[in-house]
Amino acid sequence: MVGIEISSKIKLAVKIADGDNTVVNVRGREVGGRKVTVIAGPCSVETREQLLDAARAVKAAGASMLRGGAFKPRTRPYGFQGLGEEGLKILAEARDETGLPIVTEVMEPDKVELVEAYADVLQVGARNSQNYPLLKKLGKAKKPVLLKRGLANTIEEWLSAAEYILHGGNPDVILCERGLRTHGKLTRFTMDLSAIAIIKEVSHLPIIADPSHGTGIRSLISPMSKAAVAVGADGLIVEVHPNPEEALCDGPQSIQPPEFRTLMGELRSVASSVGREL
Amino acid sequence: MVGIEISSKIKLAVKIADGDNTVVNVRGREVGGRKVTVIAGPCSVETREQLLDAARAVKAAGASMLRGGAFKPRTRPYGFQGLGEEGLKILAEARDETGLPIVTEVMEPDKVELVEAYADVLQVGARNSQNYPLLKKLGKAKKPVLLKRGLANTIEEWLSAAEYILHGGNPDVILCERGLRTHGKLTRFTMDLSAIAIIKEVSHLPIIADPSHGTGIRSLISPMSKAAVAVGADGLIVEVHPNPEEALCDGPQSIQPPEFRTLMGELRSVASSVGREL
Amino acid sequence: MVGIEISSKIKLAVKIADGDNTVVNVRGREVGGRKVTVIAGPCSVETREQLLDAARAVKAAGASMLRGGAFKPRTRPYGFQGLGEEGLKILAEARDETGLPIVTEVMEPDKVELVEAYADVLQVGARNSQNYPLLKKLGKAKKPVLLKRGLANTIEEWLSAAEYILHGGNPDVILCERGLRTHGKLTRFTMDLSAIAIIKEVSHLPIIADPSHGTGIRSLISPMSKAAVAVGADGLIVEVHPNPEEALCDGPQSIQPPEFRTLMGELRSVASSVGREL
Amino acid sequence: MVGIEISSKIKLAVKIADGDNTVVNVRGREVGGRKVTVIAGPCSVETREQLLDAARAVKAAGASMLRGGAFKPRTRPYGFQGLGEEGLKILAEARDETGLPIVTEVMEPDKVELVEAYADVLQVGARNSQNYPLLKKLGKAKKPVLLKRGLANTIEEWLSAAEYILHGGNPDVILCERGLRTHGKLTRFTMDLSAIAIIKEVSHLPIIADPSHGTGIRSLISPMSKAAVAVGADGLIVEVHPNPEEALCDGPQSIQPPEFRTLMGELRSVASSVGREL
Repeated sequence: MVGIEISSKIKLAVKIADGDNTVVNVRGREVGGRKVTVIAGPCSVETREQLLDAARAVKAAGASMLRGGAFKPRTRPYGFQGLGEEGLKILAEARDETGLPIVTEVMEPDKVELVEAYADVLQVGARNSQNYPLLKKLGKAKKPVLLKRGLANTIEEWLSAAEYILHGGNPDVILCERGLRTHGKLTRFTMDLSAIAIIKEVSHLPIIADPSHGTGIRSLISPMSKAAVAVGADGLIVEVHPNPEEALCDGPQSIQPPEFRTLMGELRSVASSVGREL
Repeated sequence: MVGIEISSKIKLAVKIADGDNTVVNVRGREVGGRKVTVIAGPCSVETREQLLDAARAVKAAGASMLRGGAFKPRTRPYGFQGLGEEGLKILAEARDETGLPIVTEVMEPDKVELVEAYADVLQVGARNSQNYPLLKKLGKAKKPVLLKRGLANTIEEWLSAAEYILHGGNPDVILCERGLRTHGKLTRFTMDLSAIAIIKEVSHLPIIADPSHGTGIRSLISPMSKAAVAVGADGLIVEVHPNPEEALCDGPQSIQPPEFRTLMGELRSVASSVGREL
Repeated sequence: MVGIEISSKIKLAVKIADGDNTVVNVRGREVGGRKVTVIAGPCSVETREQLLDAARAVKAAGASMLRGGAFKPRTRPYGFQGLGEEGLKILAEARDETGLPIVTEVMEPDKVELVEAYADVLQVGARNSQNYPLLKKLGKAKKPVLLKRGLANTIEEWLSAAEYILHGGNPDVILCERGLRTHGKLTRFTMDLSAIAIIKEVSHLPIIADPSHGTGIRSLISPMSKAAVAVGADGLIVEVHPNPEEALCDGPQSIQPPEFRTLMGELRSVASSVGREL
Repeated sequence: MVGIEISSKIKLAVKIADGDNTVVNVRGREVGGRKVTVIAGPCSVETREQLLDAARAVKAAGASMLRGGAFKPRTRPYGFQGLGEEGLKILAEARDETGLPIVTEVMEPDKVELVEAYADVLQVGARNSQNYPLLKKLGKAKKPVLLKRGLANTIEEWLSAAEYILHGGNPDVILCERGLRTHGKLTRFTMDLSAIAIIKEVSHLPIIADPSHGTGIRSLISPMSKAAVAVGADGLIVEVHPNPEEALCDGPQSIQPPEFRTLMGELRSVASSVGREL
């Protein structure tokens, strides 16, 4: 076996021995175990009705958790910036109704306590992947962190970002591959699925894939989800919107509930073929 | 469905209607049909014994075709440049013995006729992906062409390269994704598996994946092969060497026959999970 | 003239008419006018003595402003994280002694007021280039902002980040090109000097170059500084350390005071050749 | 000085001692000496009149050599492919009239003798930068070779390509930086001017810059040409067309003779500021 060599300066995020895998427990759902976790929901919380519709639909299709953004990092100041705490409350209501744990983004250290009061998993977006004050603060949080890879991060930089959280005292980090910025023009980003296989080899942390942001194209979500499961991902995070044409963000990369149901069925087959289950 | 838009200047390589898929016939093996094609063998033909050993081993494990380079594009003039015609003769002998069709690289227009006299599939390497005189000459060849994607090619440039061959009159082009050059440091290249899903959506040409060159790391070949099949690849080309430690090139990215046998078994499961077979 | 087309969603950062250029005034130094601004100093404030030495040296060589980090974004939690407010006090003392305005980084919204109380220019690092809560807060600051380009930012994303600050009410944004992440291996990053020419064509904001971070290699600072001035940069930010071998960070990309003096002389010639002065 | 470390497998292209610089003599013009060489002319030879017009204009403005393509590597088979030998004859006629040496591309080993019979410098395009049969053949040529950097080449791969030519026995290689493929969208490529400074430090070969292909945008040619000279380039190759709007290729990145004259004047100032002359 040709080993993959990781800097010895990364101490906590690396695997020490075979089988040394962190399983993150989110309200009873295990991420990093035999089951493949599917997190689904809209890009952002837009209205109570939209989110509850989405939550019921992804629950019915078998999703394990609900995603939805209340604080949105938008490229320009003129885009919809999210509902803020109001969005968090709607997410909590959806959890109460469906039982699905909620995953939502936090963008600044000062908001960690607020988001933590509502969310089950605290998401760090790709553009904050090296926001060290935020990572330090999350090291003190009591909830698991979903850490997306930055658009130009190396694997070692990404693990080093996880190291900040682990070093701070929070052992529950879930990595998320969501695509690199490359010269490719047809997709928004280029998903690096080999990163998932590398992480499984060198780190004990669970890792999931985000084919919605990773491709930006609806028709690619199904094949890339299957590939992610086949390569060894511990889960997926997928944008599902009841009505993508009217979504306030990321419509072109969102699928509708019926497509999501079909996808879940296909994923069950692929998961089973590699010794996992949904 | 959000369509993927391809330049209208590409006329022959694009899909006109659903189900419009080219199936390339290589001595009775179909590439692009229901079966997933596995091409295996060493990076280069080194000796008669090495190649025959490899050929028997990959045949026994269920490979569909044999790969091996007789003309090698090496980064520096001091590297092993291949056995030339002598290597082609050894490949032909291996085909005679095993019945496996042979896939080998051609690097210049002037050698197309020579290579065509021995090979069943003419391979164009990533560094020649926009070598237009070579592509034009291959448009006149009577054998199928395996066209690798250049390290910095867009999807459209790659399809445009295929267009040269199709426009020249040769309808049998098999595309091969083999990794992009990115900022990633742990792997030699970054495989773009979304490219496979895109090609299946926009083109009628079959497409296979090369996880050996795409990653450069032995332990990643198995997970990336499974992912490639799950995403929809019509086949794989994998470096298998009886003794990678002594290989004249690409040892670190070659697997041995026992690992290859294991891989074939795993691929059967994954192929079946997405409605294909090996 | 073939125009460069910028998204119409960027409203405040774009140039409306020829000659429409923002000149940022920093304690009497103009950035964006005829004079090329040279900001110099160590990567981080390490000790009072180190910083004062550096400040006197760069002042003597003709620098316009002093740089030095008190809050440091380090890849891993084990690296030197900066002296914090103590570092800001040392910077202020250096300004009092030399008269040089000080430029220093701020990494989180909550620290903007503290840093603003000491600094003359608030620097946003490449890894925070799309940290929107920070950019919004800086839109309310009363001091100019030096906004570095993110490692994988497009020009439009970078101008959109500036748009956040301008939209917030702070008109004083200085852009800084500091290199892209590419496949190149010999340098830490690849400086995109064409970005400087593009910004001068499409935006009214001043732009400077950071050849220290942009290359990571001491011997490239002089040629790349000259190139940046020739291409139209309004200034440079250069790492100068009295003793680079003992620097707590970025030693290999820091030059010493004598080299800096030589560089200043050479830059005077180049600036003059393109109608500017130092 | 922090040295830049180059693989010891590159033997002939590296600098052994300070001041060890190859000066390539092209019909009396020296490339790599104190003078900055300016090669100008249209992308391709379209008609006798077009080329002679361009030749006279660039000669009048002070260009040292004339460029023009007779064999054109076009992305798709439907683009203008060049006039072939007829184009070479027109180039030779232009040389006879103006005295300017001619630089033109050769795309395949089999055409090296033909092109050599007419041209003074044999150009290898970016897409052929690792076409080893072509490089080997050029190692046997009697004319200097202009070797462009491939779109995704590292510095070491580029020097290794030069090594093929040097190893073949041809000592006259001129390197040419023409831009990398990156995620940037506003320019066709991203010019890596630090590569020029690196080459001057590690290699004895002369190096020039191609701001026309490197940017693809007319308005960037002047600033990037000045930057290239300031960073240490031994020359430039610039597309000049009498009527860019009607050019069969590369119109948007070609300048007209009056702009070229202005550019030459500006370059004289910049060259002088760094101890060179035009």
